[in-house]
Amino acid sequence: MKKKSFTHLNKKNSPKIVDISKKKNTKRFATAQGIIKFNKSAFNQINKFKTKKGEIINIAILSGIIGSKKTSELIPLCHNIPIENTKIDIISIPKQNSLKIICDVKTDAKTGVEMEALVGASIACLTIYDMCKSIDKSIIIKEIKLMKKKGGKSGDYLRLK
Amino acid sequence: MKKKSFTHLNKKNSPKIVDISKKKNTKRFATAQGIIKFNKSAFNQINKFKTKKGEIINIAILSGIIGSKKTSELIPLCHNIPIENTKIDIISIPKQNSLKIICDVKTDAKTGVEMEALVGASIACLTIYDMCKSIDKSIIIKEIKLMKKKGGKSGDYLRLK
Amino acid sequence: MKKKSFTHLNKKNSPKIVDISKKKNTKRFATAQGIIKFNKSAFNQINKFKTKKGEIINIAILSGIIGSKKTSELIPLCHNIPIENTKIDIISIPKQNSLKIICDVKTDAKTGVEMEALVGASIACLTIYDMCKSIDKSIIIKEIKLMKKKGGKSGDYLRLK
Amino acid sequence: MKKKSFTHLNKKNSPKIVDISKKKNTKRFATAQGIIKFNKSAFNQINKFKTKKGEIINIAILSGIIGSKKTSELIPLCHNIPIENTKIDIISIPKQNSLKIICDVKTDAKTGVEMEALVGASIACLTIYDMCKSIDKSIIIKEIKLMKKKGGKSGDYLRLK
Amino acid sequence: MKKKSFTHLNKKNSPKIVDISKKKNTKRFATAQGIIKFNKSAFNQINKFKTKKGEIINIAILSGIIGSKKTSELIPLCHNIPIENTKIDIISIPKQNSLKIICDVKTDAKTGVEMEALVGASIACLTIYDMCKSIDKSIIIKEIKLMKKKGGKSGDYLRLK
Amino acid sequence: MKKKSFTHLNKKNSPKIVDISKKKNTKRFATAQGIIKFNKSAFNQINKFKTKKGEIINIAILSGIIGSKKTSELIPLCHNIPIENTKIDIISIPKQNSLKIICDVKTDAKTGVEMEALVGASIACLTIYDMCKSIDKSIIIKEIKLMKKKGGKSGDYLRLK
Repeated sequence: MKKKSFTHLNKKNSPKIVDISKKKNTKRFATAQGIIKFNKSAFNQINKFKTKKGEIINIAILSGIIGSKKTSELIPLCHNIPIENTKIDIISIPKQNSLKIICDVKTDAKTGVEMEALVGASIACLTIYDMCKSIDKSIIIKEIKLMKKKGGKSGDYLRLK
Repeated sequence: MKKKSFTHLNKKNSPKIVDISKKKNTKRFATAQGIIKFNKSAFNQINKFKTKKGEIINIAILSGIIGSKKTSELIPLCHNIPIENTKIDIISIPKQNSLKIICDVKTDAKTGVEMEALVGASIACLTIYDMCKSIDKSIIIKEIKLMKKKGGKSGDYLRLK
Repeated sequence: MKKKSFTHLNKKNSPKIVDISKKKNTKRFATAQGIIKFNKSAFNQINKFKTKKGEIINIAILSGIIGSKKTSELIPLCHNIPIENTKIDIISIPKQNSLKIICDVKTDAKTGVEMEALVGASIACLTIYDMCKSIDKSIIIKEIKLMKKKGGKSGDYLRLK
Repeated sequence: MKKKSFTHLNKKNSPKIVDISKKKNTKRFATAQGIIKFNKSAFNQINKFKTKKGEIINIAILSGIIGSKKTSELIPLCHNIPIENTKIDIISIPKQNSLKIICDVKTDAKTGVEMEALVGASIACLTIYDMCKSIDKSIIIKEIKLMKKKGGKSGDYLRLK
Repeated sequence: MKKKSFTHLNKKNSPKIVDISKKKNTKRFATAQGIIKFNKSAFNQINKFKTKKGEIINIAILSGIIGSKKTSELIPLCHNIPIENTKIDIISIPKQNSLKIICDVKTDAKTGVEMEALVGASIACLTIYDMCKSIDKSIIIKEIKLMKKKGGKSGDYLRLK
Repeated sequence: MKKKSFTHLNKKNSPKIVDISKKKNTKRFATAQGIIKFNKSAFNQINKFKTKKGEIINIAILSGIIGSKKTSELIPLCHNIPIENTKIDIISIPKQNSLKIICDVKTDAKTGVEMEALVGASIACLTIYDMCKSIDKSIIIKEIKLMKKKGGKSGDYLRLK
């Protein structure tokens, strides 16, 4: 079986962007997630103040949406494609003193939105870190990963675990 | 003991940036890390092609440096401070099919560079994801965390594990 | 009659961008205006020096055009859509010691360009303020409003006064 | 009395940025405001849903803070100076079916922050327009003006009305 | 024969962007180049260290790709169009102590990518300058020019020398 | 004599930004130039319309000033430093059918402004190209080079020819 190659290096091993000029616009969709884990005391404090927690979550959602629009500025070899939707949900996982960020992105373009979804989730996590670092410097961002993608030549992807 | 409060919400629980006008410029330093974990087959393929691996690492380092300069654009409540150095190292952890990204940032400013270090590490990880997603969509970015900080009123921090 | 709802908040009242993936590209057009009012003495001074006034107006037009291209970076829940034209005119209203800025924007996209027109007009006004603040700090920017829009599901709009 | 001149045009009436290299860093402060006026029905609807109104205000505050950091990108002849604080308050003026945005900015720099305060107020207003345009296209942004400034060679300014 | 007019000035000689709303999307392509010339000693030093030279070239390629994506932010009257490919090659011209940068850009849009190709080549040259200025401050960037364009109403262009 | 080394590559030949944390703020100054050469017919047309030529020059000056502020975004290994002045002059060289762009930049920082001056000159040239490409596609940008620098450890530089 032929190994897939590195799509972002040319024959001289210099950086290249993928040439999408021969591709067709198709509906594409991707979901990524990230988890931000607090120490127990910080997580309890966040949960104790429902209004504050709600606003921290809303600021993180907004910054994730803004961040996903900047994907092609942040990831050097990403194309600038028109995002049709970025939806971010943040849910509590009390047993793990964690918040889970889920970011869905849609486009109708010649390349996919995996990176837009991953950037949206990452920036939301980092924004929460920023707002909570005064109460817990040990916060860990983890499990940033693609959960699902649809559309495009490389086919659909669904993470099983 | 008085709990530390959320520094980015005002009395009405609306977003606020921290007022640093009364602070002094001091030397500040922060180190953050991130880990990017591949499946075994992808990690082997990356390691097989030393030149390609080297260039992927170099592109990731460059994008992390660029990304850390954008921190105040990405994290809504971060101040724009002058970065004096962003150093990124990427090392292999073969037993875990992983690369570890370490990002050191220095400033002489009224607030710290924890977020600049975390953003630098995160963007480097995401850039590697982008370049390797054609060979492994299951890649996970994890353990993004502050390792060390020095300088500033809140004192030094050293992660023990 | 059913009240229209807030399109940028989801069921949990968290920020959301509007999902435009089911919409069709259509020709869209919007006109916005803004007025910048000087004190009498400053307005006279501006008018006395025709060449200077002309260049101030040209700098403002250019900055408004540049600004309208940045709309999706400035307004968090705006989509990045392809602007096909931004036309800015600035006319004198001597009786009111004012300049009126009129900004027309065109696109062929899944959502409208009202915000692009309003941002273009606002940035042109703010740029004039910046260039004239040394002669008049009392300048007021006012009457920033949508004058007209065409295209899109919500229908055409024409301000009557 | 010698008229003050246009500080952003050189002898050939070409655009110029002000040379601040001979100035000293000093503490500087500016307050600007803006008013956003709705029709009666829209204003009532906004006020009826307290949680939604609160979140719209919070999104506007955040976008104003982000916007003020972009001032030197938006206003062509503004210097990029370190913002030490951007504080935005939004208050209801029910008699006028309006919200008033007040934006305070602080720096310690060689030039002032009037533009940063005016941009912060303007972007907050425009963001509210964006979120409310589905219920009221007739919204008007008005009275964007400098209220107060302190510090710098041109002296303090306090608007009397 | 009627002279072609200045497409970026309106009847009042104020700046204008070209209205592309009546144009059709078509495949477009442009190639630009730039040359960066060193003194003999610096050029020899660069060539002596093959790995360093390779990485300098790769950093320049990456920054040129990133730069071409920013064209509409840098050139005030350029439209933001979707780049489908930016390919940068850098070749040695030992007889002239020079490196030649060649930048190809593709789009499918209502206006061309000449500026994207020229910006990509220019930013790659400037990045090389930055990395080599410690060994040679006399470096000259020259011969930045359009080599070829295809598509669009103004027809194809091929530079003969 | 010890050869100067490549300051932007670390021991592994990976990209690095220069660590300026041990340096002192000092007054620094740099002048760069660029030349944009037209064919005879285009140059004559530009000169025939004095007002149009003046405005093209003014748009180029403004875009060069804006561009120099973006230097640290464009050149990956440049620090973001506070620009205190960017002055751009554009003069005619009729014998060569050319315009010469001269860009002076000042700062008080830990590193120099050579790149800011070179970027300012380059963006001004590219903006002129954009505005004149409809009348002359053969335009060449050339002689982009550092003319002078003052301040900083590496000493002053004055180009002799």
